[in-house]
Amino acid sequence: MLPKTPAKGMRDFLPKEFSLRQQILTTIQRTYESFGFTRIETPAVENIELLTSKQGGDNEKLIFKILKRGEKLNSAENGELCDLGLRYDLTVPLARFYSNNVGQLPGVFKAIQMDNVWRADRPQRGRYRQFMQCDIDIIGEQSNLAEIELITATMQTLSNLGLDNVTVRISDRRLLNALVERCGFEEEQKSSVFIALDKLDKIGVTGVMQEVEAIAPGKAVEFVNLINRITSSPDPFRRCTEELGDYLPQEVKQNLEEILYVTGKTVKNGNVVFDVTLVRGMGYYTGTIYELSVSGLGISVGGGGRYDKMIGKLTGQDVPACGFSIGFERIALLLSERNMQNTVNRGAAVLVDKNIEPDGIVAVMESCRNVRQNSNVTLLKKIKNFNFQIKQLKEQGYESIYEYKNGAFNKID
Amino acid sequence: MLPKTPAKGMRDFLPKEFSLRQQILTTIQRTYESFGFTRIETPAVENIELLTSKQGGDNEKLIFKILKRGEKLNSAENGELCDLGLRYDLTVPLARFYSNNVGQLPGVFKAIQMDNVWRADRPQRGRYRQFMQCDIDIIGEQSNLAEIELITATMQTLSNLGLDNVTVRISDRRLLNALVERCGFEEEQKSSVFIALDKLDKIGVTGVMQEVEAIAPGKAVEFVNLINRITSSPDPFRRCTEELGDYLPQEVKQNLEEILYVTGKTVKNGNVVFDVTLVRGMGYYTGTIYELSVSGLGISVGGGGRYDKMIGKLTGQDVPACGFSIGFERIALLLSERNMQNTVNRGAAVLVDKNIEPDGIVAVMESCRNVRQNSNVTLLKKIKNFNFQIKQLKEQGYESIYEYKNGAFNKID
Repeated sequence: MLPKTPAKGMRDFLPKEFSLRQQILTTIQRTYESFGFTRIETPAVENIELLTSKQGGDNEKLIFKILKRGEKLNSAENGELCDLGLRYDLTVPLARFYSNNVGQLPGVFKAIQMDNVWRADRPQRGRYRQFMQCDIDIIGEQSNLAEIELITATMQTLSNLGLDNVTVRISDRRLLNALVERCGFEEEQKSSVFIALDKLDKIGVTGVMQEVEAIAPGKAVEFVNLINRITSSPDPFRRCTEELGDYLPQEVKQNLEEILYVTGKTVKNGNVVFDVTLVRGMGYYTGTIYELSVSGLGISVGGGGRYDKMIGKLTGQDVPACGFSIGFERIALLLSERNMQNTVNRGAAVLVDKNIEPDGIVAVMESCRNVRQNSNVTLLKKIKNFNFQIKQLKEQGYESIYEYKNGAFNKID
Repeated sequence: MLPKTPAKGMRDFLPKEFSLRQQILTTIQRTYESFGFTRIETPAVENIELLTSKQGGDNEKLIFKILKRGEKLNSAENGELCDLGLRYDLTVPLARFYSNNVGQLPGVFKAIQMDNVWRADRPQRGRYRQFMQCDIDIIGEQSNLAEIELITATMQTLSNLGLDNVTVRISDRRLLNALVERCGFEEEQKSSVFIALDKLDKIGVTGVMQEVEAIAPGKAVEFVNLINRITSSPDPFRRCTEELGDYLPQEVKQNLEEILYVTGKTVKNGNVVFDVTLVRGMGYYTGTIYELSVSGLGISVGGGGRYDKMIGKLTGQDVPACGFSIGFERIALLLSERNMQNTVNRGAAVLVDKNIEPDGIVAVMESCRNVRQNSNVTLLKKIKNFNFQIKQLKEQGYESIYEYKNGAFNKID
């Protein structure tokens, strides 16, 4: 017997599940389009060189690699068995897309991507090996108008999905850099300190302190105290700028200040706050970084940042770029739990005799033709256990059920 | 420098291309839904055992196989390097889906699938290594109501897409069997004769004759003459049934007769005709088979048939099943060529000063908020070459362009 279940960590979507997911995707796309974003698509499969170009951080360890075919496999040099892979995110393919199509794209390009990505991760609740990502990116806009639009549009999207009490936490990679310089860490210690700080949620202040002490003995207390003074202040951003003084470049300060000011006014369904402890894993961020959380859920439901150097890796010429990715699967799970009791309206069902004559089918089909311009009609043969069939159809969400008999439609339910 | 182009045989879709494809998909889905079909989704990746279970015919030679990971790869037995693969069609995954979820599905299940499939084929015009398939299937309906609905719904879909003069050619695998029995071919010669007949389009009558002669010397002339008598008759179906006599089971004759009669009346944008030369490649068909062609295009733009034995391979219990697959890529190409000159309405563009103050951005964002409930507004910074920017925006499809200055919106175009 063949395997009936989907591949490990992957899912089948039944009609009701699919319908909810599609409704969410439609709302996301429509809202982003209202902000001038347009949807594009790249293939699920990319050349392995692109996927392993050190842009993807730890995700590169999780690539599903595709075996070479035919002659290429037989003559594989250096044991290189694979030439393709499944994308693990939508940002690296977007950078390739932009490089490939720049001549046909506007100077400031606002892209929507809503597509599956694949990661050979250990499956667990809410984490899958094929999952949907919803990204918006603005390529070609150097100023913080990009960040402001990305945050405002994303918060409007969540509002249209019925999600309120959303918080965007925001910081900047350059501010993090100022922070560790202010504490006197060496250049080569910086990224390890960031990794330690990134774990604050999981390992707590004591855990961070221990890890930092291991990286740079004698500096952990000062570092953690500085973080504590900032986070416990009534105005963490102001306190942070005071603590960092000249370590923090003026442009970085002004950039964050403006984003916090403007989005504080344009965002209505939550708030945008400075968070000095925000790091975000991906190595490609060069400036602003931000993360989304929904009140009541401990976990992040999205995030993004500025990655001004990635496209240059492909083209040799840097282009400013900034993105925001919504954690679609977590949002879909949240909304499906809220809507669990709702049934879908499936329209009408028409039941015909098991031995209906061809002319009867023609008559039913003709009667349905006009109705189908505006609503749904499913045609089914009656089964022996008629009452059971009616019950099942009602459970499936059919609003009205008709029986076609002797040339007439009789409403049963 | 990294590769900028998509992987071989795969495509990037720019906003305008994506938009056309999405419009087509929306029309297809809405029309099929009006006939009571509901959309489902299966993962792109399936276990390799399923994909290589001899259901897919020659497509199994074109599978993109995914390398095992970690320990599994190191301890690979018998040199089995792969445990997963990308699906090459939507029918084999549907059979698995049905087996996996049968307890939650209605007795007669009408499914829509619109998803990518992958085949490591030699790329050429109109043939890609990642492409979209649109399938509808009815599982659990034994009678030809299934075929009638599949054909009527598909023709209505094509009509809603603006495609008229479509022809469905129809036959039955059991009729083909009667045909070769009538000519006295041996059991083991049958499938080779079908393969030869299937090439009629490409190699012509003489080619078919030569191939059949090579399979069963002395029988080719009779076979080809029989085919010719049927195809050249004013009523090929009647002629065929007369020629086949008792070789053709009465139920097969009646089945085709009814489908031709009913769809002859329910289909308004084309016709449904019997074609004795229709074979269709896939090995899994057990009864009715059909193929779609659009007037003016020589090629098939879709097809399908009944495959009553496939689900049994997974569950041990046969379930009647019947499907119709639209050749989405060919239809999208046809429609894009027709719509080439059309531009998309992108809504309004608002241009702001390069050095706009934060309060200015807040004011613009607030003004756009209500407009965005019903239409699209993109916000952009003015560039030095203002006239060029306006020209570009018009070309991109912006219907109205505003300049925001000193607290007021001035319509430029």
